[in-house]
Amino acid sequence: MKEFSVTVLGSSAAIATEGRNLTSHLVNHSNNLYLIDCGEGTQFRLQHLKVKTNRIKNIFISHLHGDHFFGLVGLISTMHLLHRTEPLHVYGPPLLKDIIELQLESTATVVGYPLTFHSTQDDHEEVIYDDGRLTISSFPLTHRVPTTGFLFREKEQPFHINKEAIDKYGVPVVYYAAIRGGKDFITDDGEVIPNSLLTLPPDHPRSYAYCSDTIYKEELIPIVEGCDLLYHESTFAHELVETAALKMHATNVQAATLAYKAHVKRLMLGHFSARYKDLLLMLDEARAVFPETFTAVEGQVVFI
Amino acid sequence: MKEFSVTVLGSSAAIATEGRNLTSHLVNHSNNLYLIDCGEGTQFRLQHLKVKTNRIKNIFISHLHGDHFFGLVGLISTMHLLHRTEPLHVYGPPLLKDIIELQLESTATVVGYPLTFHSTQDDHEEVIYDDGRLTISSFPLTHRVPTTGFLFREKEQPFHINKEAIDKYGVPVVYYAAIRGGKDFITDDGEVIPNSLLTLPPDHPRSYAYCSDTIYKEELIPIVEGCDLLYHESTFAHELVETAALKMHATNVQAATLAYKAHVKRLMLGHFSARYKDLLLMLDEARAVFPETFTAVEGQVVFI
Repeated sequence: MKEFSVTVLGSSAAIATEGRNLTSHLVNHSNNLYLIDCGEGTQFRLQHLKVKTNRIKNIFISHLHGDHFFGLVGLISTMHLLHRTEPLHVYGPPLLKDIIELQLESTATVVGYPLTFHSTQDDHEEVIYDDGRLTISSFPLTHRVPTTGFLFREKEQPFHINKEAIDKYGVPVVYYAAIRGGKDFITDDGEVIPNSLLTLPPDHPRSYAYCSDTIYKEELIPIVEGCDLLYHESTFAHELVETAALKMHATNVQAATLAYKAHVKRLMLGHFSARYKDLLLMLDEARAVFPETFTAVEGQVVFI
Repeated sequence: MKEFSVTVLGSSAAIATEGRNLTSHLVNHSNNLYLIDCGEGTQFRLQHLKVKTNRIKNIFISHLHGDHFFGLVGLISTMHLLHRTEPLHVYGPPLLKDIIELQLESTATVVGYPLTFHSTQDDHEEVIYDDGRLTISSFPLTHRVPTTGFLFREKEQPFHINKEAIDKYGVPVVYYAAIRGGKDFITDDGEVIPNSLLTLPPDHPRSYAYCSDTIYKEELIPIVEGCDLLYHESTFAHELVETAALKMHATNVQAATLAYKAHVKRLMLGHFSARYKDLLLMLDEARAVFPETFTAVEGQVVFI
């Protein structure tokens, strides 16, 4: 099965602490790297993990709060200084383009690679990326500024070849692709071998939903329903549920409730307020609602 | 003697390496903190060194290359999140204000403290700060974009009281200030005690000159003449003197030559290209020209 993983580069809310960096997730799907959010210092985290930035072709910014994008211009600049020629696509709120371009112009930087901005919309769900194997959608979150989440979803996978049956019926290699696509096989004698005899079920199409920053909103349930991994912000523990509402953030218990109602497989909490020195209570409260919960940790690689 | 020191927060050129951060210097003069340049991640360095950002009242940006200012907006935002109320003054090229303000507006941030931008000019030397004890001047450097250096210079210091003489002549405390200012003392008997008998020489007014980034330019000599500490960029070792010229940077030998010709007391090299894994050759070459040379190291505190 092809790799589909998320590496946590930052698990902190707006103020970084020693050990917790500003928000960024690195997604690996079939060796294509995608970056979600890019708080200040993200380029140093990538460097520390020996990630070649050339391999990142697409960057997704959820919203224009500094802890989610102040590292973007530095990363774009460093890619230029490293003589990148690969195109880079950046998806985010419309103003992001202006902010980055003003800084590049002011620093007299003409980036040496094609840099394309794609505006996200925060009022409806929308497929913003499709490479034939993976789609990425943006969808509305509710925060103090326009914000979107991102849903990474594998497309329906082809059937697996049943090697034993293939050998038994003497199917030539040239037919494999058609059989993986669902076709039957007709032998030289005219016998129809149904596809179900020649194949094994396809891999389950995997999915990863990223929700930061947002209030608890049940409108997310149909969007993230059944996904393999849900990342949901958990800025506060539940005793601060009113503070969370006021600041348009969510609590650990709210994140777990959403995970439970949406029947996701696993829940990753993150975006922790600097006030939480350790996260044990944060985790325990959430696991009481949704046991398959864990807390994001810098450098952690989560396989989907 | 009051503290006058420079803490190196970053010694790297445009691309940070493991162990070398992007440029920033923290100056402490009489417990007033001044930040010079603010590469990405500077706020994390300050946090690591337990520097309370509230104590920084003035920030100086030499030029608009990202490695010298991409950390500024994050620092300004964090100061806001930490409920700063103290005014902050930022000195830098005129466009800096637009860049920061666009980002603050886009992130719907209205900073909760007075934030004032002061434009520096890159065509002449100018005093931009004067608190009665210290002046700070900007002066033109020559780089690919408008760039200034900064000269921190203590004002002429008052005389020291000669405690023995003061006791001998029975000078009342109320006269101390006048005597430190150079006045003579007249006893009750009408005897004039000349100031020179009552005082010891004042402390030497100390100075720190910051020159990054720039080509080698002898026009700097009268500006930095005799200063106690000269920081001069040394992006390249001297074998790359042509590359340096092309990129409008300086070499170690050029920095040392300037230090020698300007009769400074000590020279600190910094802004090292990522190609130099160790700096021994860099240092040795410079010391051959100007022995009182050392290389900047992250976290190092240099007393002036």
